[in-house]
Amino acid sequence: MPRIVDHKERRRQICDVLLDIVAEAGIGSATIREVADRSGWSTGVIGHYFRGRDDLLLGGLRRAAEILAERHTRLLDTLDGVQALEQLLETSVPLDGRRLALARIFFFFFVEAMTDEVLRQEVESYLVAWRKAIARAIRKAQDNGDLSTDIDAKELAKDLVGLADGMSMHALLDQNVMVRLREQSPVRYWLTRLARDPSPERPSPRPAFSRPSADG
Amino acid sequence: MPRIVDHKERRRQICDVLLDIVAEAGIGSATIREVADRSGWSTGVIGHYFRGRDDLLLGGLRRAAEILAERHTRLLDTLDGVQALEQLLETSVPLDGRRLALARIFFFFFVEAMTDEVLRQEVESYLVAWRKAIARAIRKAQDNGDLSTDIDAKELAKDLVGLADGMSMHALLDQNVMVRLREQSPVRYWLTRLARDPSPERPSPRPAFSRPSADG
Repeated sequence: MPRIVDHKERRRQICDVLLDIVAEAGIGSATIREVADRSGWSTGVIGHYFRGRDDLLLGGLRRAAEILAERHTRLLDTLDGVQALEQLLETSVPLDGRRLALARIFFFFFVEAMTDEVLRQEVESYLVAWRKAIARAIRKAQDNGDLSTDIDAKELAKDLVGLADGMSMHALLDQNVMVRLREQSPVRYWLTRLARDPSPERPSPRPAFSRPSADG
Repeated sequence: MPRIVDHKERRRQICDVLLDIVAEAGIGSATIREVADRSGWSTGVIGHYFRGRDDLLLGGLRRAAEILAERHTRLLDTLDGVQALEQLLETSVPLDGRRLALARIFFFFFVEAMTDEVLRQEVESYLVAWRKAIARAIRKAQDNGDLSTDIDAKELAKDLVGLADGMSMHALLDQNVMVRLREQSPVRYWLTRLARDPSPERPSPRPAFSRPSADG
């Protein structure tokens, strides 16, 4: 048999090695040299696929997004609404090595994207896809009677992904938040509150607590 | 009168110019050169206070933390529990220029801190201080009967700051999230739910939805 290299597959393998390094040692250690040392491929071979470290990291981001998208599809196909919702929200909560890598690489690029419009659009598309999967799960849960139909699925999806990402980010900075995430999913806590009360009204834009603001 | 320079005050003024630049043009534009151009101080004068751009940005972070701490104290001193809670949670939500600068500089350093242990400890201390202020406001609201005493203030504070920071981060990347934050505070929505039901039980660590996980 001739030695045929599947370039797409090789690229993906390189990105997976990168994500392993990000999980174990952080973004700072994720270099072409380190990927070469771990994988046995030469820096020359890796250089055939990635123009430099920044390009390699971007490859890692795209691989992370691909892993998440595959997982989202699988969860929506196999679980009922509420179960899918919980697990969709936890796909990038850093509770194990793989998800630690996803969280680290996403937050790194979130900040990069704040000063790079092309990258911002790409990152936004990942957020939008995640929220769409969440909204689909919310609607499934509504169809089953597990969540109130008064809830706006699209808007709630924004809050829930914000909650999941915010706590994940804080967990990477503060062990007390990590402990809380390990002990009990706050997402589950919030969902339980929504699921328990079958007819929550969305409050009007005016505060329920209508005293004057300190800002004047 | 001799010309006496108040170095602490000068340092603070430089950081405030930096934060203005971050608000208007982003972290990428926050350089010593740009601060000099805006402020009229020479790069030499600025160099007397900051060793370089990284040091200047760190000065901006510390000034941001100082601004937040002052604001937190004022809110706790002047407002009742629920009002203070809402506003404490929104102190770094990027709804105006000043808060946009705070959000941008904090997220920038959150990611830096993920690969720098000394910086991580500093950033953690800011998160802890924020959560402490939030927990104080929750306890005040509980004392007034506005929030259930069954709620663990310290744990709820972790969730709420996660929600606020996560949505703020997403708002910097996705205009749809920014629109949602402008139209209605999700923090207020969540607090309303907590305030409405005076006796929510914290669910046990086992899920309320106890079907098997797709992860096995």
